[in-house]
Amino acid sequence: MKFLNFVHGDAPSLGALISDGRILDLSSAWDQAGVPRCVDDLMRAGPQALETASRLIARAEAQQPGMPMVAYDRAIILPPVASTGRNIFNVGRNYRDHIIEGNIANGRPANAFPEAIEFFTKPRTALVGHRGSVLRHGKLTNSLDYEVELAIVIGKGGRDIKREDARGHVFGYTILNDITARDLQKKHGQWFKGKALDTSCPLGPVVVHASAIADPDKLDLELDIDGDLRQSDNTSDMLFDVASIIEQLSAGMTLECGDVIATGTPKGVGFAQKPPRCMEVGQTVNARIKGIGELSNVIVEG
Amino acid sequence: MKFLNFVHGDAPSLGALISDGRILDLSSAWDQAGVPRCVDDLMRAGPQALETASRLIARAEAQQPGMPMVAYDRAIILPPVASTGRNIFNVGRNYRDHIIEGNIANGRPANAFPEAIEFFTKPRTALVGHRGSVLRHGKLTNSLDYEVELAIVIGKGGRDIKREDARGHVFGYTILNDITARDLQKKHGQWFKGKALDTSCPLGPVVVHASAIADPDKLDLELDIDGDLRQSDNTSDMLFDVASIIEQLSAGMTLECGDVIATGTPKGVGFAQKPPRCMEVGQTVNARIKGIGELSNVIVEG
Repeated sequence: MKFLNFVHGDAPSLGALISDGRILDLSSAWDQAGVPRCVDDLMRAGPQALETASRLIARAEAQQPGMPMVAYDRAIILPPVASTGRNIFNVGRNYRDHIIEGNIANGRPANAFPEAIEFFTKPRTALVGHRGSVLRHGKLTNSLDYEVELAIVIGKGGRDIKREDARGHVFGYTILNDITARDLQKKHGQWFKGKALDTSCPLGPVVVHASAIADPDKLDLELDIDGDLRQSDNTSDMLFDVASIIEQLSAGMTLECGDVIATGTPKGVGFAQKPPRCMEVGQTVNARIKGIGELSNVIVEG
Repeated sequence: MKFLNFVHGDAPSLGALISDGRILDLSSAWDQAGVPRCVDDLMRAGPQALETASRLIARAEAQQPGMPMVAYDRAIILPPVASTGRNIFNVGRNYRDHIIEGNIANGRPANAFPEAIEFFTKPRTALVGHRGSVLRHGKLTNSLDYEVELAIVIGKGGRDIKREDARGHVFGYTILNDITARDLQKKHGQWFKGKALDTSCPLGPVVVHASAIADPDKLDLELDIDGDLRQSDNTSDMLFDVASIIEQLSAGMTLECGDVIATGTPKGVGFAQKPPRCMEVGQTVNARIKGIGELSNVIVEG
């Protein structure tokens, strides 16, 4: 099941992407009490709501007449989690080859790996959805870089979650482009400032329910700019897997339903290339994860 | 005017601390439409609501009969900003002498000052109010440290706010104790993990309206543990003042009403002392800023 938030008419609606590529408007189709209007509503509503969604999706998949279907290409897709709420959690250097490329670019020993996960955050004011515009912030930064990442969406909160229980806390997975102003990231010491600019957090297009992802630690992911492939790897290259990330992040800190955790990016980022190749106005950045979909955004002036 | 959130009976209420030390229950006293139930409500309601509050406070100050007054010592005080919403913004090394003590403790050149502000965040799940308990997190950390800080509460949002306009965006000021697990801060590279533990963000007790603070860059602040003075300084020692912090943080990133920005801590933190002296179960940590008040919390097992 692939859930998304989209605009239908004037109102936001909860949708499901079905296999023929169309969106089922789940909010309109809902035939029970407590109509969910967005993915967050659905997550909070619990297992019975998920069963209702599953039943309605099955009817749409069977091409039953009378289901409220919307063309994906024409819909305005919103970020699949709420744009208010606490910050997105992010994992820093997590892919072996990306750590090595960063170490070399920064003049550190190539094999200096982190001993524990480097967590930072991005504010939700930075969220944009699939096809949303990303500001170039040309007055602030010379190096606006891309980072394709697998993002975990937490369904069941908790603290001190153990490795072996961690995957049971996941509602689903989505794609996050952790756009980074490299010069600000460096200049401000801590990474937050370079990671927090408005529109620097494309997310989506869909949240794939965890039941549809056999192994989140074995997913192909890639990113291209105008068709030029820049990143291509598999989540199996992660130093810390999904369960470890949840375990370390939740140690002493309560996770909540709706929390988003980005898991780090593989090699191929712009600043580590020779010469560095970051993003410029007019380019389209496409981030893909197999089994989830494609998240595309155009870079605009501003 | 000093605003606070507190529990009156079973319900949360907006209060004002008046000069005889009692709390005026502003929510109960409110004689206009749109009763504010917390400081966030008041901030969002705009200047007319502030005038109503000011008029009611004047009546309480004049000891008019019939005003709903509550004893401060008996009230349950809540954090003065909402415990949901995006993360608290924090400024890293900002006091000259604290930067020097940290540099020496970490074996860096004493006078290596940051060239730009080091921003990081704390999740709102970490908030506790005045007199709230702070968990020792003994299984996770050997060094739970204190940091008294002046915190800015943003009233009027905006992006790319200029230095000269910055103070006009401030609703008021409060006290924040940026409790930090030093070992986790170091082990996890980025500071977030060591700064994000549950109950690691005491805030309050009141938000003092900006009109009552003549100069936020000239305030005495101090912190003691069980009466033993550990930190004592003045915000004039800050490398980056309140206006600069707002300018740098809002560059390319939208600030919102209700955002909280902690401005860094002066010298005297526990880990820099010889031998290091962090916080232990049973101790009470008291953070004070002149003109704002005192924020006290006891360290408990857990």
